[in-house]
Amino acid sequence: MKPRIGLLLGDPTGIGPELAARLVAVPETLASASVTLLGDPSVYADGARVAGLPPVPPVPVIEWRCGDPSGFGLGKVNAEAGRYTLGSLREAAARLRSNEFDAIVYAPLNKQAMKMAGLTDEDETHFFARLLDHVGASSEINIAGSLWTTRVTSHVPLRAVADLITQERVLGAIGLLEGVLQRNGLGRPRLAVAGLNPHAGEGGLLGTEEVEIIGPAIERARRAGIEATGPHPADTLFIAARRGDFDGVVTMYHDQGQIATKLLGFERGVTLLGGLAVPICTPAHGTAFDIAGKGCANPGPIQEAFRIACRLSARGNGASV
Amino acid sequence: MKPRIGLLLGDPTGIGPELAARLVAVPETLASASVTLLGDPSVYADGARVAGLPPVPPVPVIEWRCGDPSGFGLGKVNAEAGRYTLGSLREAAARLRSNEFDAIVYAPLNKQAMKMAGLTDEDETHFFARLLDHVGASSEINIAGSLWTTRVTSHVPLRAVADLITQERVLGAIGLLEGVLQRNGLGRPRLAVAGLNPHAGEGGLLGTEEVEIIGPAIERARRAGIEATGPHPADTLFIAARRGDFDGVVTMYHDQGQIATKLLGFERGVTLLGGLAVPICTPAHGTAFDIAGKGCANPGPIQEAFRIACRLSARGNGASV
Repeated sequence: MKPRIGLLLGDPTGIGPELAARLVAVPETLASASVTLLGDPSVYADGARVAGLPPVPPVPVIEWRCGDPSGFGLGKVNAEAGRYTLGSLREAAARLRSNEFDAIVYAPLNKQAMKMAGLTDEDETHFFARLLDHVGASSEINIAGSLWTTRVTSHVPLRAVADLITQERVLGAIGLLEGVLQRNGLGRPRLAVAGLNPHAGEGGLLGTEEVEIIGPAIERARRAGIEATGPHPADTLFIAARRGDFDGVVTMYHDQGQIATKLLGFERGVTLLGGLAVPICTPAHGTAFDIAGKGCANPGPIQEAFRIACRLSARGNGASV
Repeated sequence: MKPRIGLLLGDPTGIGPELAARLVAVPETLASASVTLLGDPSVYADGARVAGLPPVPPVPVIEWRCGDPSGFGLGKVNAEAGRYTLGSLREAAARLRSNEFDAIVYAPLNKQAMKMAGLTDEDETHFFARLLDHVGASSEINIAGSLWTTRVTSHVPLRAVADLITQERVLGAIGLLEGVLQRNGLGRPRLAVAGLNPHAGEGGLLGTEEVEIIGPAIERARRAGIEATGPHPADTLFIAARRGDFDGVVTMYHDQGQIATKLLGFERGVTLLGGLAVPICTPAHGTAFDIAGKGCANPGPIQEAFRIACRLSARGNGASV
């Protein structure tokens, strides 16, 4: 049975609607899943026109409207467009709760517009975790090529990071990454865990979190049968990851992972809202205002997000959720 | 007048002596500087033998001995070798104080061996700063290709970083990088300054150091005529730097810079002890125990270290120190 994927158009002011139109125009997309578009048909039609495709999508549509799309504009942050986008995410969450979809793929959002429209959550993962009544660890997973990374802390000031590093949180992030990588088809993923301090603390000389917290958490993960190593110095870890030594990397804070994954091509990668009961994926890039409406947006990343959503969805791989 | 460069063999247990022998065997080296070897001639001879070169160097030697080199071994940390290495650095500092050299180039050290031999300084920059009675900002500068980076804090626990970020320190790092880049031949280097927090604090939502400290420090630098921009989000900054948008990057902490520079090829780059009155340069890579004695060490990075030392030395470019 094909996975049922809900597809959202993202923020109408950016390249999202164009990408959604390009995605459903690819035969592989419709062959591999049962796709339903959730959104305003006229927003889709605008994107299709930019892409040079027919205005009516080749898939079923759940018509969902909010505001007048003719006023959203292109290439500029717009609060009304943000209200549309945020509303479409809420509607998607409601449809997930009533089990209408096995996974969600959404085109790029504009966080500033959504904040203007009333988003108060730290990020999309927290937003969906709240609306789906999720219990337990959840965290953004960044996928660049074959490298999957997640982090113990995310959108918090650097000053607050060290106190948030606990054995439970490190273990939660390790387990979360192990879980999604297994669901993606790896039997025994090789996970690397970064240290927090320079040189991974250099045996306690440059910080004690590796010895007191991260090391013991890795030890507990290993006793639970997870192939996790570390804590590794963060600056050499990604050289090894690029070489292919690891399937997944757990970092301790936002920039520790993002500096590396962005240099390793994450702008062409995928973001997965990790830990939730259903896969929710999106391309890692943004709304690309500079090329909105120009018809030159690259659908590669949203296609990859779609493939991952299919593989991870329960119907896609036969695994229990 | 050619710059007078003091060349040190580094730790005898690694590839240092081989690299020194390879360096002075290159005609460009002797054409561009007046080189003096400072060290034990039998350590040099061992390295030259590994490199397949004559046992006597083609440059003057200041014979400096410490311990019996036949007991140092190869490919393993050795405290006696560390004592030799540390002593050779001290001797080099003494010769700098008596104005015998315009710059120093040293082959890779083994920090663990030097610590076993009594090194108590945080790193080589602090070691030389102390021995040269240096006053003012000093900090390691990492050079990967045409990108020069330095940092406001270095070998300290991540937990301690935020409190060490002050306007004075940020301004000191900016000025230091501007100074060496100018001395290296750039009239008006384009400097980028990283933020401390995710998304450079996102206007205060994810931390206040950008608004209260780093931004004002950049403003002061600009008022002093320095072309500095930022604070930039650290994870996108290095994408722009790789593209060639900047000549120098100031980071706030060790891994913020090192994760990026290592991915950008810093293992083939150069470390400069920045801020000191005389240039002291070394290849960025280590003693490479896995290939010590095998005769296959790549002299590219030590040649680049040598070129930079020549360019930066007062006699090399005619600038006042």
